[in-house]
Amino acid sequence: MRVPLDQLKSEFKRVLLKLDFAQYKAEKCAIVFAENSRDGVYTHGLNRFPVFVDMVKQGLVKPDAEPTQVGGFGAIEQWDGNLGPGILNAGFCMARAIELAEKNGIGCVAIKNTNHWMRAGTYGWQAADAGMIGICFTNTIANLPPWGGIDPRLGNNPLVIAVPRKEGNVVLDMAISQYSVGKLQQYKMNNEELPLPGGYDKDGKLSTDPTTILASKRALPIGFWKGSGLSLVLDLLASILSQGNSTAKVTQSEKESGVSQVFICIKPQDNEYTTNIIEEILNYTKSSRPEREGGTISYPGENTLKTRKKSLAEGVLVDDRIWEKVLVL
Amino acid sequence: MRVPLDQLKSEFKRVLLKLDFAQYKAEKCAIVFAENSRDGVYTHGLNRFPVFVDMVKQGLVKPDAEPTQVGGFGAIEQWDGNLGPGILNAGFCMARAIELAEKNGIGCVAIKNTNHWMRAGTYGWQAADAGMIGICFTNTIANLPPWGGIDPRLGNNPLVIAVPRKEGNVVLDMAISQYSVGKLQQYKMNNEELPLPGGYDKDGKLSTDPTTILASKRALPIGFWKGSGLSLVLDLLASILSQGNSTAKVTQSEKESGVSQVFICIKPQDNEYTTNIIEEILNYTKSSRPEREGGTISYPGENTLKTRKKSLAEGVLVDDRIWEKVLVL
Repeated sequence: MRVPLDQLKSEFKRVLLKLDFAQYKAEKCAIVFAENSRDGVYTHGLNRFPVFVDMVKQGLVKPDAEPTQVGGFGAIEQWDGNLGPGILNAGFCMARAIELAEKNGIGCVAIKNTNHWMRAGTYGWQAADAGMIGICFTNTIANLPPWGGIDPRLGNNPLVIAVPRKEGNVVLDMAISQYSVGKLQQYKMNNEELPLPGGYDKDGKLSTDPTTILASKRALPIGFWKGSGLSLVLDLLASILSQGNSTAKVTQSEKESGVSQVFICIKPQDNEYTTNIIEEILNYTKSSRPEREGGTISYPGENTLKTRKKSLAEGVLVDDRIWEKVLVL
Repeated sequence: MRVPLDQLKSEFKRVLLKLDFAQYKAEKCAIVFAENSRDGVYTHGLNRFPVFVDMVKQGLVKPDAEPTQVGGFGAIEQWDGNLGPGILNAGFCMARAIELAEKNGIGCVAIKNTNHWMRAGTYGWQAADAGMIGICFTNTIANLPPWGGIDPRLGNNPLVIAVPRKEGNVVLDMAISQYSVGKLQQYKMNNEELPLPGGYDKDGKLSTDPTTILASKRALPIGFWKGSGLSLVLDLLASILSQGNSTAKVTQSEKESGVSQVFICIKPQDNEYTTNIIEEILNYTKSSRPEREGGTISYPGENTLKTRKKSLAEGVLVDDRIWEKVLVL
């Protein structure tokens, strides 16, 4: 079923106002949830909205809380999210990083005690739409075993790198797990095999069976030992720079709340060389012969724009059951 | 065969002086080549030294060249490497990034027209030894097909993230390819299978056979489509920020020369919280039950220190044939 973007937004806003969100906060959160679905990231749009509402009701997300500055030096700042809505805190921090980069060429904002920011890419698009190179990452609850281990001790710590481009920003938005838990559950529900190995079975053999991997809790980080190391250092950076909770602490609390995040912006030179080098890189990449006849090679963010266009023309795709659920919230 | 570190260094220095390197440049390059072998990165220590000498003889690496500043704003700077030795240019840029971060909390230096920096991790250790969080990356010649394609169009663009720690820095040093070409050749020479899939065969099936992958030229990026996207955006950042050559340009020249690199430093708060959170993260990660009985879980950089200690105690492991070759250069 498809629903107009505005309707999605106004339903979200209606629910958030009932939860005592201030007008402008309800508006901003509703826009981000709706746009996440509009861009095809359903898992962090409509589908996650009921979970967010629950977190607010449980008091884990505090609608009234505002970020407060706790430190700063030159082009870096530390903020406390005070357990406010992750979407608002993250949007605020990226806006501050943009300002710092306008002034200093580069800026870095770290925030502690914040909450799930939903789609990581949201803040990459925000930076790139402002003409900035944007880099951001968050830690999460532990959901990946480190390399050589079997118990989850690392987060999938999504990482975003965004590059502004007039014809469409390039936005890499990737978790460090090969497949998210949500994705594994989706394949399982559809009774489908994964196209590529996504974890281990109980005997430590690579598997493409989502049920096996969900049971073993041994999902795969990207690049095996490399993703394991990358997840670890992103957690170090987020926890050190924000002076906030690590994946260890977040996991011990058993609820994914009070996470740590980092937002970096760099101001690129806005000239012909920059414009041309971006096109050169994208065109060269696309000049690789496709693996399958008629296949195409996409840059990160390209399919987002296609989905966005379709959503705006035909309405945003929604899961009927979840949509019905939101309508009666 | 094992050779004392000092002997390795003095042989490298002797050869470089014959190539008309200034004393201090020969000294610095010799130290880095020797230390790369000392730390177990033989591919970018002794084993690469003869290739470096060839590049100098061919005029692709210019011993006399010094980096010159071509731009700067606030905490970011652009430099031209003027095709000087990559080791010297990279060491210089990371030193500048450290200075910028001392002053501004964060600093970013991009360099164009530089050469292969040998071991990427060298500059991460440099930053961390100076008490800084260090991030750096380089583009390279194309050696990976983009996701969905079969012709190499992306570099393996090594990425380093380093965190200072008194008991031993945490240094992630990873190329975006699952296995480097050098690693694949090593497995092939030893007639060994890869422990995990490292690329595709000609029919597009995942393979653990190094010969098959070297023949198909379809090595695997980490995390399949994710590494493909990561390699692309790192090339974008390096080329845009330095206003230098992209992987496309470097590849068209057929020699891996004139590459683009980025060095970022962030000054962490030097306090008890930082010290404790690092230990908390490392200890939590290591608390995962090992996959194999007696197995251990390491953090990035941990094994480097073990190898370093052994090299200092017993001498640096060298490939006899390459060592003999260097002795008569």
